[in-house]
Amino acid sequence: MLYIIGLGLADEKDISAKGLEVVRRADRVYLEAYTAVLLVEQSVLEAYYGRPVILADREMVESKSDEILAGADEKDVAFLVVGDPFSATTHTDLALRCRQNDPPISIRTFPNASILTAVGATGLSLYNFGQTVSMVFFTETWKPASFYDRIAENASLGLHTLVLLDIKVKEPNLQAMARGKIIYEPPRFMTVAQCASQMLEIDEERKQGICGKDSLAVGVARLGSDNQEIVAGTIEELTNADLGNPLHSLVLCGKKMHEMEWEYVRGFAIDQTKFDSIWKRDYAGHN
Amino acid sequence: MLYIIGLGLADEKDISAKGLEVVRRADRVYLEAYTAVLLVEQSVLEAYYGRPVILADREMVESKSDEILAGADEKDVAFLVVGDPFSATTHTDLALRCRQNDPPISIRTFPNASILTAVGATGLSLYNFGQTVSMVFFTETWKPASFYDRIAENASLGLHTLVLLDIKVKEPNLQAMARGKIIYEPPRFMTVAQCASQMLEIDEERKQGICGKDSLAVGVARLGSDNQEIVAGTIEELTNADLGNPLHSLVLCGKKMHEMEWEYVRGFAIDQTKFDSIWKRDYAGHN
Repeated sequence: MLYIIGLGLADEKDISAKGLEVVRRADRVYLEAYTAVLLVEQSVLEAYYGRPVILADREMVESKSDEILAGADEKDVAFLVVGDPFSATTHTDLALRCRQNDPPISIRTFPNASILTAVGATGLSLYNFGQTVSMVFFTETWKPASFYDRIAENASLGLHTLVLLDIKVKEPNLQAMARGKIIYEPPRFMTVAQCASQMLEIDEERKQGICGKDSLAVGVARLGSDNQEIVAGTIEELTNADLGNPLHSLVLCGKKMHEMEWEYVRGFAIDQTKFDSIWKRDYAGHN
Repeated sequence: MLYIIGLGLADEKDISAKGLEVVRRADRVYLEAYTAVLLVEQSVLEAYYGRPVILADREMVESKSDEILAGADEKDVAFLVVGDPFSATTHTDLALRCRQNDPPISIRTFPNASILTAVGATGLSLYNFGQTVSMVFFTETWKPASFYDRIAENASLGLHTLVLLDIKVKEPNLQAMARGKIIYEPPRFMTVAQCASQMLEIDEERKQGICGKDSLAVGVARLGSDNQEIVAGTIEELTNADLGNPLHSLVLCGKKMHEMEWEYVRGFAIDQTKFDSIWKRDYAGHN
């Protein structure tokens, strides 16, 4: 049996009681470590579980899944995923391979907290979110703006957009690679401020005012941990917000933002007077 | 401190290890028992936690929240919520009351699995979902169709719609109430088949073909439990699907359903040949 077990968002104790039982008795335990990261070190997990954990990087999951699945038709293998198992398509891949294996490998999935719902801590109603988008790090020459089309679609319906921010873990250094060496770059995590700047940059090109200076948004950091941080303001204000350590995400507010949502979110405002006046001018009464 | 603790979806062991620690030491433990239900009895929870749990029905949460919050500025109170704490706005209410209390009551939230992400078990990508809608039980005279406008909005963007199905717990019998007595109706849980019938009924009135006979959809039951069930087919096929015990939900597929999603979902099809031919005719190539 392959168990795909969600670890939740923050630390070693966010695993479910049921998941912990499986981890403690499984034959092997893998930790998927590239689409998201926990806020604690691997050693902390291992100490709490009382056993070693094998790090599964992108290469292993995508090209060496046979290794992970070896013997799983007879033994129990646990595959740990930060957040909720099905929030990343990689895990659908793995499940497909189990189904196609000969003999087929049984699979069980233990859901857990995901940023997609934990973002409800902002006070924004999960019913009022449209499709989720991802924001990648821009470079000098590569500024993919397809996120803008998606948030424009959500905005046309008055819906909020959750923006998931890029993380770069175990990325090879390209110059070293050209010399035939593999050296990994230090990990990078996009901040709310970087995301807000990139949104503003594309909005200034497109001029649709979808995520302009005065658009309201909420930045979140380390949701689910005891030092989580939530900051609300305009996109312009958020370009200067410092929410500290990773992981960060951003929600662009939709025009339908209800009075009850506003009442809660304004408690996190950088400048409450400004937040209130923009909400009243541009958002109130659109639902 | 008020701890709002998500219990996840299925049973007593879906609580996080962290949540369990708090439940075992808190001064009082409440269980919110009307917006969703676990698949196990209260007594099973109590046996696992090793302590009594106070049932909090709608009346208590909405009108007697002072009782729940009493002493929470000094002692620890645990408020348990099926699924994820912030998936229902009630809990935003409770959090607002903590903030406004004198002295303010500190609050911590432990996220957990929600149907909003567990539905990824169908193989449909969570990135391709639009806004979530609710479906209530129709009566002879009351057939609220606002859900149709929302799914039409999602459909216009090619997005999937998660439809959450009505549950009726502790509803007073109206005839008894007219005689001055309070008698509660037995609990009712909407099935995938009932939901599909109601969708078809409204689509036949509106004639937009948003959720017509040949629209593809996926029914899910008891997600996250070891007897979860997933069934894919047309809305018409689903009007006859029997997915057994509650809780059920339904996903109406958007036209952008990707080939990778299709490849996974078809494994759950009632009639795979039919599912494939409709996908190829109406869905393939829309993304």
